[in-house]
Amino acid sequence: MTTDVISVIRTKRDRCALTHEQIDWVIGAYTRGEVADEQMSALAMAILLNGMSRPEIARWTTAMIDSGERMDFTALTRPTADKHSTGGVGDKITLPLAPLVAACGAAVPQLSGRGLGHTGGTLDKLESIPGWQASLTNEELIGVLRDVGAVICAAGEGLAPADKKLYALRDVTGTVESIPLIASSIMSKKIAEGTGSLVLDVKVGSGAFMKSLADARELASTMVELGNDHGVRTRALLTDMATPLGATAGNALEVRESVEVLAGGGPADVVELTLSLAREMLAAAGIPDADPARALADGSAMDHWRRMITAQGGDPDADLPTARERHTVMVPVSGILTRLDAYAVGVAAWRLGAGRARKEDPVQAGAGIELHAKPGDPVTAGRPLMTLHTDTPERFAYAQEVLEGAYDIAPQGTEFAVTPIVLERVI
Amino acid sequence: MTTDVISVIRTKRDRCALTHEQIDWVIGAYTRGEVADEQMSALAMAILLNGMSRPEIARWTTAMIDSGERMDFTALTRPTADKHSTGGVGDKITLPLAPLVAACGAAVPQLSGRGLGHTGGTLDKLESIPGWQASLTNEELIGVLRDVGAVICAAGEGLAPADKKLYALRDVTGTVESIPLIASSIMSKKIAEGTGSLVLDVKVGSGAFMKSLADARELASTMVELGNDHGVRTRALLTDMATPLGATAGNALEVRESVEVLAGGGPADVVELTLSLAREMLAAAGIPDADPARALADGSAMDHWRRMITAQGGDPDADLPTARERHTVMVPVSGILTRLDAYAVGVAAWRLGAGRARKEDPVQAGAGIELHAKPGDPVTAGRPLMTLHTDTPERFAYAQEVLEGAYDIAPQGTEFAVTPIVLERVI
Repeated sequence: MTTDVISVIRTKRDRCALTHEQIDWVIGAYTRGEVADEQMSALAMAILLNGMSRPEIARWTTAMIDSGERMDFTALTRPTADKHSTGGVGDKITLPLAPLVAACGAAVPQLSGRGLGHTGGTLDKLESIPGWQASLTNEELIGVLRDVGAVICAAGEGLAPADKKLYALRDVTGTVESIPLIASSIMSKKIAEGTGSLVLDVKVGSGAFMKSLADARELASTMVELGNDHGVRTRALLTDMATPLGATAGNALEVRESVEVLAGGGPADVVELTLSLAREMLAAAGIPDADPARALADGSAMDHWRRMITAQGGDPDADLPTARERHTVMVPVSGILTRLDAYAVGVAAWRLGAGRARKEDPVQAGAGIELHAKPGDPVTAGRPLMTLHTDTPERFAYAQEVLEGAYDIAPQGTEFAVTPIVLERVI
Repeated sequence: MTTDVISVIRTKRDRCALTHEQIDWVIGAYTRGEVADEQMSALAMAILLNGMSRPEIARWTTAMIDSGERMDFTALTRPTADKHSTGGVGDKITLPLAPLVAACGAAVPQLSGRGLGHTGGTLDKLESIPGWQASLTNEELIGVLRDVGAVICAAGEGLAPADKKLYALRDVTGTVESIPLIASSIMSKKIAEGTGSLVLDVKVGSGAFMKSLADARELASTMVELGNDHGVRTRALLTDMATPLGATAGNALEVRESVEVLAGGGPADVVELTLSLAREMLAAAGIPDADPARALADGSAMDHWRRMITAQGGDPDADLPTARERHTVMVPVSGILTRLDAYAVGVAAWRLGAGRARKEDPVQAGAGIELHAKPGDPVTAGRPLMTLHTDTPERFAYAQEVLEGAYDIAPQGTEFAVTPIVLERVI
């Protein structure tokens, strides 16, 4: 079928729209192995450079959904609500959010991934809890969802296999940064998963894939349209990722911070974003009167967390792993912290062992970075600015080098306005 | 080395120039198998869509030359001259041209390829001569060149292996039609081959890769600059390929026509182009006073042809193969033939068996098309317009269908100017 795939590639290469027939054929043939990787990567580059229209993206997404199975949660008595983040540094929001929204009456089927590069993965974080298992059968998943109201687990192999193959290919061919390909990848998985409503957390800034607000807006509105067209009530928040979220980046470090939030404490930005996303999910799920702030305060969110972790073999009372070595970066000069770069912190945490360079690599549960100040905070020379954690102390030097230009300190009294965490809402 | 290839792909994807280091690394790593096909095809698509500057093309060409061996003809007493055509329908010029230029005093090392798609291949044509062998060792090649003055044979595996690999990849990934990639592919082989001078026959029109004069000019001037920068005296002719060249398209059919030209006859356009290219080659080789028209007339070109064929095991007196079946297409209405589309004739001849769809396919020696009229000729209703030849008569219907809209006949007396064969000269 070489002739056919070349005509599909040429169509997009020559800046024309792919027909529905071309899209259905190429996704199906690629999934079956009849279109070779080198042909699909040429097509992916042509799509990245020449774009796809909204109707093309819609059909591409449908074809990827149709490449595999679809889950069905309609037998549950509660409405389902899911959240997806486009990925950032210190983004542990799924951990407190899923049990919180369950405590407010929705069912939260949170099928998650692992981290690659400088952004962390939800499953990697939870796996730092002794005993916790990411892999569930579809029956186990539905059981936890019915019994607890929230489940966080690995997406099964049967969901959107075309996307799994294409995602791995894009990763090694420089074709990740395409709004049509990102939007269809995320939405094919989420629609196949079968959630009734979905809130997208689209990150903007140095630590995110989308560096500009305009790109983030385009990605968000593309995904919101795709979701709604497929019968999933979908909305999006554009949120800041110029600065890391919360006070930690790393697996066990972020679990600890999430438990603080569930206990009614935790960093203000994490609490604010968790509550904002919870309200959106509950409204989308048809439960607009629920009060997530009360569910945090009265312990019901924490209760759902403990049951959710226990249901997947984890011990919510176990001590979390810690790294063997620590190194403290001191504040060089007193003043006010005006910038702390999310990308640099993400790369440093990754290289300290919190993330992986290849899919096969293990991660260190205890590795990462604690931040002792955030932009807007006063800092004092000689006091700790960040603490680096790792089992492999030979990496301290590299991490310190990455962090060197990652922050700015202005003289005390400088006017400074902290960026709000939620930048825009797209419905 | 995944990180490195992605940064190279991203550079071109993001419309920046590749550095010399990036080009050298990626060509070397691809040749060694360290860069995967799916990565190179993404880069090829980015190059096709975003282009390369002349300095990038120059370095890319040098890197492909350096991926293999270089031949050296400086020990020959005669100056060397080669010709390369970008490929067209009925383009048998190499066959009479090589012995003709040898008869005039130059040495012609004509390393050639096979046909793919609707354009024929010089080696396929010569292989219709009983006994003739395309493959020579480097020593045999130099021996024939020294003894006869002309050799037409397959390029050895050692010349520009990076190009061989990349050419096969481009063929299946929709990344053929890129001026930088075409120019560097042709010139890396020709420069590695070691010729002292080179004349390029850049085809323009429906039957050629370059459909417009502007593209052909750009390709020609890119290649002329590449050749001269590498010390090969290079010039180009832009020639018409809207109409098939000569009166035949097909392997044995074209050998027969070439022998007619060497015998002092043959179609006017084939004779004119052969002489024009011979004069350019002889001038570039420093033999401007040679008279190729006389070498055709006095039999010395034919003598060189016979010795050249014999030196490679062929019998110049043997009967050429003929196809088992013929079908004649009749002139539907009397008048003057004003158009005969090269692409349609090429596709029809190819599908009749003269060409191959895949590299592995065999070709039929006798298959092809004879043209009984060319644009400008008067035609009479009910008389033969073309004769189709094939061993597989079930293909007649398809070929006839392709040829249906391939020609126009205007009323007798209509003004009509025949397009000259040589359109422009690029030096």
